[in-house]
Amino acid sequence: MNGKSRRTGGRSALVRAAVLEATVAVLLDRGLDEMSVGEVARRSGVHETSIYRRWGTRANLAVDAVLAGTNAQFATPDTGSLRTDLVALLIEVTAFVTTPLGKLLVDLALRQGLPEYDVARQKFRAERFLPAAQVLTRAQERGELRTGTDHGLLMQTLIGPLYVRLLLTYEELTPAVVEQVVAMVLDGVTPPPSDQAAG
Amino acid sequence: MNGKSRRTGGRSALVRAAVLEATVAVLLDRGLDEMSVGEVARRSGVHETSIYRRWGTRANLAVDAVLAGTNAQFATPDTGSLRTDLVALLIEVTAFVTTPLGKLLVDLALRQGLPEYDVARQKFRAERFLPAAQVLTRAQERGELRTGTDHGLLMQTLIGPLYVRLLLTYEELTPAVVEQVVAMVLDGVTPPPSDQAAG
Repeated sequence: MNGKSRRTGGRSALVRAAVLEATVAVLLDRGLDEMSVGEVARRSGVHETSIYRRWGTRANLAVDAVLAGTNAQFATPDTGSLRTDLVALLIEVTAFVTTPLGKLLVDLALRQGLPEYDVARQKFRAERFLPAAQVLTRAQERGELRTGTDHGLLMQTLIGPLYVRLLLTYEELTPAVVEQVVAMVLDGVTPPPSDQAAG
Repeated sequence: MNGKSRRTGGRSALVRAAVLEATVAVLLDRGLDEMSVGEVARRSGVHETSIYRRWGTRANLAVDAVLAGTNAQFATPDTGSLRTDLVALLIEVTAFVTTPLGKLLVDLALRQGLPEYDVARQKFRAERFLPAAQVLTRAQERGELRTGTDHGLLMQTLIGPLYVRLLLTYEELTPAVVEQVVAMVLDGVTPPPSDQAAG
């Protein structure tokens, strides 16, 4: 247990940190469906009954551990241009969601049926999309976005293809793919006016 | 058991149809994680050991049942315009993925780690994206698509935001949302040239 944990307050905080750290380790080894609270107890040295008393459910423990392990905010790029801001932001997002912890967070956010998962989903949305909102607001002020653009739907359209590749097609998520998606959505895919006049 | 099943061939086909039908019913009632082969056996009147002999694993049975239950192809719209073709196709896709069976298929396609799920994912991709490929090829021939557009990535960019709303944000998937996504991706979100000249 390092000095940082110790400073955040007393035995209770130490126990919490040990349990959350062990939970993340078990989740990374076994996945969400095979995570056992018994194994978390063994690895953390904290009694299983104490863990259940504090966290209530296995799902709640998993959500708390993954959120604690991934609570670093994304940086908000400010390159002066919407295009380069979006490329920088989306490269950061794809780098995160392809880490083991990022994959766990996406896995939790995709789960349905338990209120604990709703908490994970809401925190996932609220925290991760804040930098995007700032990037789009600044671009709108600079006149780089069409009037009336729905910022939420625009971010979903930029992030959506990356999730499709991550979760459904397992295709690569390279910076070049990110740049292609940003170009398609900013410029559109219909031929530019010069081509249309020529054709 | 209806006449249609009977015509497809013999006792073996009847047993298969009964088991797959019962499997879909149990999946719809309990979800993938809680589906039990014992319950499928009770509902279909087929011995659990026979089911395991034929399908091998619970996951394989689930995949076979859901694929059999959802094997209708999407129609390929041919309205004469890329915009209206895409809106028609995406409205059909969103209608499908919000049905109970469509949700099961998406759930299967999202699963990882078992070869059975790879089969579901590949069939999901191959069968469902065929009409989209035809729509885009015709649009390219009519000169409605920018030269060099990556058709696969374009479809992911159109479908992606719909999956984000379905799986992560639980926002509505109305025809108006589909139209907005199609407009953003076809026209882009940067201001049109007239606005840029004015600004």
